[in-house]
Amino acid sequence: MKLGDRVEVEFRNRKYDATFVNQEGGIITVKLRSGYNISVPEAECRIRLVQEAPRVEEEGAPGTGNGSVVILTTGGTIASMVDYATGAVRPVKDPRIILRGAPEIAESGEVEVREVMNVFSENMRPADWVRLAREVALEMERGKRVVVAHGTDTMSYTAAALAFMFEGLPSPVVLVGSQRSPDRPSSDAPLNVAAAVKFSSLPIGEVGIAMHGSISDESIVLHRGVRSRKMHTSRRDAFRSIGIPPLASLSHGNVSLEGHARAPSGAVRLNGRLDERVSMVYVHPTLQGSDLEAMADGRRALVLMGTGLGHCSSTLYDSIGRLVRDGVHVVMASQCIGGSVNMNVYSTGRELQSIGVLPAEGMLPEVAYVKSMYVLANYPEERFAEALLTDLRGEVIQREVQL
Amino acid sequence: MKLGDRVEVEFRNRKYDATFVNQEGGIITVKLRSGYNISVPEAECRIRLVQEAPRVEEEGAPGTGNGSVVILTTGGTIASMVDYATGAVRPVKDPRIILRGAPEIAESGEVEVREVMNVFSENMRPADWVRLAREVALEMERGKRVVVAHGTDTMSYTAAALAFMFEGLPSPVVLVGSQRSPDRPSSDAPLNVAAAVKFSSLPIGEVGIAMHGSISDESIVLHRGVRSRKMHTSRRDAFRSIGIPPLASLSHGNVSLEGHARAPSGAVRLNGRLDERVSMVYVHPTLQGSDLEAMADGRRALVLMGTGLGHCSSTLYDSIGRLVRDGVHVVMASQCIGGSVNMNVYSTGRELQSIGVLPAEGMLPEVAYVKSMYVLANYPEERFAEALLTDLRGEVIQREVQL
Repeated sequence: MKLGDRVEVEFRNRKYDATFVNQEGGIITVKLRSGYNISVPEAECRIRLVQEAPRVEEEGAPGTGNGSVVILTTGGTIASMVDYATGAVRPVKDPRIILRGAPEIAESGEVEVREVMNVFSENMRPADWVRLAREVALEMERGKRVVVAHGTDTMSYTAAALAFMFEGLPSPVVLVGSQRSPDRPSSDAPLNVAAAVKFSSLPIGEVGIAMHGSISDESIVLHRGVRSRKMHTSRRDAFRSIGIPPLASLSHGNVSLEGHARAPSGAVRLNGRLDERVSMVYVHPTLQGSDLEAMADGRRALVLMGTGLGHCSSTLYDSIGRLVRDGVHVVMASQCIGGSVNMNVYSTGRELQSIGVLPAEGMLPEVAYVKSMYVLANYPEERFAEALLTDLRGEVIQREVQL
Repeated sequence: MKLGDRVEVEFRNRKYDATFVNQEGGIITVKLRSGYNISVPEAECRIRLVQEAPRVEEEGAPGTGNGSVVILTTGGTIASMVDYATGAVRPVKDPRIILRGAPEIAESGEVEVREVMNVFSENMRPADWVRLAREVALEMERGKRVVVAHGTDTMSYTAAALAFMFEGLPSPVVLVGSQRSPDRPSSDAPLNVAAAVKFSSLPIGEVGIAMHGSISDESIVLHRGVRSRKMHTSRRDAFRSIGIPPLASLSHGNVSLEGHARAPSGAVRLNGRLDERVSMVYVHPTLQGSDLEAMADGRRALVLMGTGLGHCSSTLYDSIGRLVRDGVHVVMASQCIGGSVNMNVYSTGRELQSIGVLPAEGMLPEVAYVKSMYVLANYPEERFAEALLTDLRGEVIQREVQL
C-alpha cells in the first residue's frame, strides 16, 4: 500500500472508504472521505486496496517560448497542486503548472515562464521583495513585459514594496495569484493568468494585482497594488481596491482602462533599498505600553493600526512619547481599513499628534508599513514625515472624512 | 477677542475668514475655513471681529421620562458636541444631548437617559464592559428595554463582550453610536437613536449595533454584535455585518426582522467574569518570534491575525511552540476579515496545528479575542479549545471555503 491508494478499512466492525496515508510503528493512518485522518493500530484493522493512487501529474503546459511576456513564478497556490493523498495543496517543481488550463497562452509562444523562488508567500521577507524586483528589472531591461505569479497571502505587501522600489516603470508589473491551484478544474488560475498577460501590455506604469472581480468568471480586474487588500480568506474575488476603483478590467475579452492609472516612464528605474526595521501593532483594549516598547525594540518605525480615525488608549501615551523621544517614528493607521485617518477631529487625536504620532492619513495600514521601509532607507531622518505623507505612487487617497 | 469669535485676519496683503483660537506671547492663532490653524506674529497682522462666538449650547432635549426604555450613555461622539472654537469634538455634561434632533422620542416620555460613564471608547477596558453589563442587567431586571449609546471606535469589542457575558437576554441590548455629534445638523445620531429605541422592542435575545445601513438616511440596520465591525473611519454606514445579513432593518418607518435572529430567554442572566490576560498580534512580514513572546508576556491567550486562511512565517514556529508548551493558548484568526480560517488546506496550516495553534475558524479576529477572555474566565483550562470553537452567540459562521 502506498500514499494515495484508495483503500477500504475495517475497524471495530465498521468499514470506511479512505485514502492511505502511511503505516509506521504498527499504526496505519488513512484519510477518511470526511477529510479527517484517523490512525488505528495495524493489529486491530483490516485494510484492502480498492484502487491504486493516480500518478501525480506535475508537468505544466508549454511556456518555454521566447516571446514578449515573461511570467516569473514565486510559489504560492498558483504554482501548486492538490496532493490527492492528503488533500493538502503543495508546491510543484515545474513552474509551467500555472499555464495549465490556459492553452491558448501556453501554445502562443508569446509567454516564457521562469521560477525565481518557490515559497509560500507568508514566508516572504523584504529581502525576497528586493530579489524579485531585481528579476523584474532585468526582464524589463531585456524589453519584456512582466507578470509575477505569487501566493495571495502577502501579495498586497509585495505589490506595495515593488511599487515603491520601482521609481520608473515603462510597463506595468502585474502580480497574479489564484485561490485554487491550477490543477483543479474549478481553478481561478487560468482566467487570472490570461488576464494578467493582457494587462501587462497596458500603457501604464503601475504595479497591479490581477484577480477575479466577482465570484463569477465574468470579469478579472487589475487593482492598484498600493490600494489593494486581500479581504476574504477564500473567495475568488478576495482582493479589493480600497477607496478607488480598479485600474482596469477584462470582461468578455475586452480590456477597459480607467483614467486614473499612472502613465509609464521611459526606462525602468529600480531603487532596491528597504530598511526592514519596521513593525506593526494592532490596537486593542488590553494593549499595554510595554507591548509597544517590545514591538519597537530594534525598529526605526512602528505602525499602529489604531481605532476609528486613528486613536488608542490614553494609557499608551507615555510609552509612545518615550519611543518618539528615542527616535522611533510612530505612525497611526486605522484598523477600519476603509477611509482616512484624521487626528484633528477629537482631542485624543490632537494629543497623540502633540506627542509626535504621525497620522497615515489616506494610506492603508500595510502600505504605510511597507512605505516606511522605503522612506527610512532612502530619505534623511528628518524628512521621514514629509516623505511618508507625500503621495508617491497613488497610495494616498483624498480624505473622505465627512464630519 | 475670545475663543470662537469669527474674525477677519489680514496678513501679508491677504485677508482670511477665520475663527479666533488664542493670542499668546505675541502670536495670534486662528482657524482658517479650510480647517487648518495658522499662527502669525501679532505685529504682522491686523485682526477684526466679524461676529462673536455663539454661546455653547450644552443642554440636551428632555429625556427624563420614566418610560419603558432607558438609554445608558457611555460617552463617545454620540454624547459629544463640536467646539466651534477649535473645530474639535468634545464630550458634554448632559447625556440628553443624544436626543437632540429626535424630539418625538425626547417628548414621548417613553425614554429615560442615564449616563453610566463618559469616556472616549478607545479608552474602554474589559472592566468597563463588566460595569456596563451590570447597569444593563439592573435596568432589565426593572423591566426596562435598554439602548447603550457608545463611541464607535470600539463599539464592536464592547458588543462582543456584552454578547458573551449575557447568557440570557429577555430583550435585545442595542448599542448605538454616531459618526457626527448630535449638535450638528447633519448628524446621524437622531435617526440612529430613534431606530435603536425601536429595535429595543424586537422579540430577540441579541446584543446588536444600530447604525446607518447606507450613506443615505434611508435605512438603519441592526447588526449582530459578534458579527459586526467598523469598516470605515468616517462614513455613516461604517459598521458592517460580516458574513451574515443584519438582524433587522428600519426603513420608511417599518422594522423588518430577519429569520436568523436569536430568540429571547425568560430572564436576564449575566455572567460578568472575563479574564483580560489576552492580546492580539497582527502578522506581517517582519514579525519576529521575540515579538510574539513579548506580546504573550503575562497573557493566557494570544490571538494572531494571520494571513489568508490562517498562516504566518515558519520563522515564528519555534516561538509559538514555546508559548504553547508554556500554557499560552495561541489562536489563529485572519487579517482578511472576510471568510473563515482553514488550516487544513496547506501544509503550513497543518504544521501550525500540529504545534498546537487553534484555528478561530469562522470567527472575526476581535471576537475571537473577546471570547478568549470569556472562555478563560469561565471554563476549565482543558476545555479552552472546545469552548472557543463552540458557537455560543451566533459568532461562528459556517465555513465558506471553496477550494
